[in-house]
Amino acid sequence: VRCIFFYDELSQYVDSHQEEYVQTLRDWVAVESDSSDVLRRPDCHRMMDMTAEKLQAMGGKVELVDIGVQELPDGKTVALPKVVTAQFGSDPNKQTVCVYGHVDVQPAKLEDGWATEPYNLTDINGHLYGRGASDNKAPVLAWIHTVEAYQALSIDLPVNVKFIIEGMEETGSNGLDAMIVAQKDTFFSDVDYIIISDCGWLSRRPALTYGTRGNCYFFAEVEGPKQDLHSGVYGGTVIEPMTDLIGILDTLISPSGKILIPGIREAVAPLSDEEWKMYQDIEFDIESFKSKIGVSQLMYSNKVDLLAHRWRYPTVTIHGIEGAFSGPGSKTVIPAKVIAKFSIRQVPNMDPAVVKKQVTDYLYSVFAKRKSPNKLKVTMIIGAKPWLADTKHPLYEAGKAAVKRVFDVEPDLIREGGTIPIAKTFEDVTGKSIIMMPIGGFDDGLHSQNEKMSRYNYIEGTKLFIAYLHEVAHLKKD
Amino acid sequence: VRCIFFYDELSQYVDSHQEEYVQTLRDWVAVESDSSDVLRRPDCHRMMDMTAEKLQAMGGKVELVDIGVQELPDGKTVALPKVVTAQFGSDPNKQTVCVYGHVDVQPAKLEDGWATEPYNLTDINGHLYGRGASDNKAPVLAWIHTVEAYQALSIDLPVNVKFIIEGMEETGSNGLDAMIVAQKDTFFSDVDYIIISDCGWLSRRPALTYGTRGNCYFFAEVEGPKQDLHSGVYGGTVIEPMTDLIGILDTLISPSGKILIPGIREAVAPLSDEEWKMYQDIEFDIESFKSKIGVSQLMYSNKVDLLAHRWRYPTVTIHGIEGAFSGPGSKTVIPAKVIAKFSIRQVPNMDPAVVKKQVTDYLYSVFAKRKSPNKLKVTMIIGAKPWLADTKHPLYEAGKAAVKRVFDVEPDLIREGGTIPIAKTFEDVTGKSIIMMPIGGFDDGLHSQNEKMSRYNYIEGTKLFIAYLHEVAHLKKD
Ligand SMILES: [Zn+2]
Ligand SMILES: [Zn+2]
Repeated sequence: VRCIFFYDELSQYVDSHQEEYVQTLRDWVAVESDSSDVLRRPDCHRMMDMTAEKLQAMGGKVELVDIGVQELPDGKTVALPKVVTAQFGSDPNKQTVCVYGHVDVQPAKLEDGWATEPYNLTDINGHLYGRGASDNKAPVLAWIHTVEAYQALSIDLPVNVKFIIEGMEETGSNGLDAMIVAQKDTFFSDVDYIIISDCGWLSRRPALTYGTRGNCYFFAEVEGPKQDLHSGVYGGTVIEPMTDLIGILDTLISPSGKILIPGIREAVAPLSDEEWKMYQDIEFDIESFKSKIGVSQLMYSNKVDLLAHRWRYPTVTIHGIEGAFSGPGSKTVIPAKVIAKFSIRQVPNMDPAVVKKQVTDYLYSVFAKRKSPNKLKVTMIIGAKPWLADTKHPLYEAGKAAVKRVFDVEPDLIREGGTIPIAKTFEDVTGKSIIMMPIGGFDDGLHSQNEKMSRYNYIEGTKLFIAYLHEVAHLKKD
Repeated sequence: VRCIFFYDELSQYVDSHQEEYVQTLRDWVAVESDSSDVLRRPDCHRMMDMTAEKLQAMGGKVELVDIGVQELPDGKTVALPKVVTAQFGSDPNKQTVCVYGHVDVQPAKLEDGWATEPYNLTDINGHLYGRGASDNKAPVLAWIHTVEAYQALSIDLPVNVKFIIEGMEETGSNGLDAMIVAQKDTFFSDVDYIIISDCGWLSRRPALTYGTRGNCYFFAEVEGPKQDLHSGVYGGTVIEPMTDLIGILDTLISPSGKILIPGIREAVAPLSDEEWKMYQDIEFDIESFKSKIGVSQLMYSNKVDLLAHRWRYPTVTIHGIEGAFSGPGSKTVIPAKVIAKFSIRQVPNMDPAVVKKQVTDYLYSVFAKRKSPNKLKVTMIIGAKPWLADTKHPLYEAGKAAVKRVFDVEPDLIREGGTIPIAKTFEDVTGKSIIMMPIGGFDDGLHSQNEKMSRYNYIEGTKLFIAYLHEVAHLKKD
């Protein structure tokens, strides 16, 4: 295929439309599409409508897919935000990529410690502050503007581009798995590759993400007396559930971060020399990482250990305890039933089903040694698998070429410590290859106060996507 | 002193006025004098006014003592309920007793699991259900009716009777200590004995209470990152404050209830043979205690060990953790700052100031071994001493005689596992001897749902107080 790539024209077009792109992002951020708050559900619906209208106005073949209702704790139901699908081009001779993104956001209130109104996009020194700016509205818009730029310059899209945009990502993507399964042989049938831009760089250097950790989330409930008791009146006579719970939680992990549950560490894929070298080459400043999170010392003091434990080793976090006293001040209560919440991040070659058994068996055996009359119940409520791509896959080679063209550097090849379960679903259901191509900055503050998207990342990121479509067009069809 | 005691007449008078007493209790319970709820403060003021009016109508010399204001967390202040003092008789040839009680209550809502409206006294099979019925409105009324009965039959009170009734007991008796100190040489100058009836029996047998445990309440705060972190993104890189906190909490107490803080157990007064025998003689049904709290096994399986650990040995309770995730459901947070709340019940010969140092030193040393970069801060926010009376003191001999007259049994001599700090204050400030003479039943459900006062305890309790005044009159003046 002879191919002329009008990268400079496209790039100039993007530069000259920067203010328009920022304005569109401002309009999108203004919609408080917080999917965790049912009272904000009308905003979520409006956000999906706006997304669909935008894609429709560009001539896409757009659908708003009904994915049913959400059950609320009180038994009532509320409609889920519809999923937007869109298609630009259907040339069977071209590759077809499908871009996944989401336009719902985490909660945000000025009182949480924001310096600016979270839903009023505010430019401070080229940083665009606003909830959802980086996660994930600007990346979704960058993909839309990519298609728009090709259209505006009447340049044929080098690949067919599909979109799947959801509005429930921040609260667990309810209904999306079923929708993907249902459309496996329709919408997804001609998709060659799936692109996800729902993460960030590790440093100021662009990155390609090739792995995410999974997560097994556990509840450990210890139940004793039939009701909370006064610690003065009953303390010393009852075997307190809280003491039992603290006792078993303390056997999960050592002070130096070693997981003590038998079998967990043994399952982990060994770190290869090649991987070690990859980590060694990554740009990562431990000092700025430390000062960003405000600690004087990390679990590991060298880059490779630190990155490896962030991305490719499991970790145990104890999130908290339900049922115990948690307010300010003092209360002299013996809690009758306490439920610890902890999770274990999953990496290759761990299997959530095996982890469930390892954790459960271990905690029951540790608890049995206490000879407590209280009742322990361990349940795993989430079992999300890790995802790992091959960085030598042509998709990643194309990504490296695109980064090289736009930024004139090699990208960092990184993983995410967090879990993006939809990647594993796409892989398992559609069997397609996936690439994660972030454009957000390392300091964008996703899920935190003062989330931002920098103009630089937003605009150069759009160019990256433009270049990437060109590179993908040159891949041999599977 | 030649003395004729018209016990039968007084007793008959009480029996024949039972319905009137119940009605007065109903009127008092109807006042929602919940001192923990600032919005209920007008009800607390009204309750103090009603108490004062009742005593005034009986010809007492009554004062409503202003004890100042309460500071609220938002910096505002609200008036404390005034303290009611009253005096009946001032014959220098008679003993003077001062009865302490409170007319504020714990919170209660029907939705908490009450079978009846908590502020509508409801008679079910002779049990009078209502918030504050047993704690402490009926005992206060029983003392008032005691004086009234003598007055009604024109029988000279055998002793001078003073009252000090407060309205903040359930939330820490704010302002009362200062008021007692201030009136040490006025109101309290001619008081010989202080009587407290703010506790309950241990079984169906009447009891005299001669000791209460104190309480040292600790906050242990572990602070790490400057803000909460995402467990996926940061798990494995930071030393998590929650892991550190669980680790140090697990060193406080063994699964079998042994306190592991050096020096605590060593300080406790040894159990004498005599005390062992006293415990052995107490009527206490372990099986019904177990079924009441709903456990299959207690920390100790014999009566003496169980009672001793309830009353005269220290105990550690971990109440909960502030700052960690405590809601239902799941949240993937690494809490940045977590504060454990735990307390150690105090017994003779422990000293809160020493305990503070023992606990603090121990936790810092245990924490140091973890080599964590996080910051630990241990503070003791309450340090209430235990209180212990001599059961051979004439006050108790008089109590035994009164119980014998009314119930024709020997009372159980018991202690309270809980803390009644005002007893220690009275002792330390006034130097007077104190007796605790409960009339509430063992199953009255103080601080719980479905609190009740039985008619039997209310009416026979009034007779006990009548008989007790007579017995006290026969004590030699100190
Ligand atoms: Zn996202
Ligand atoms: Zn009370």
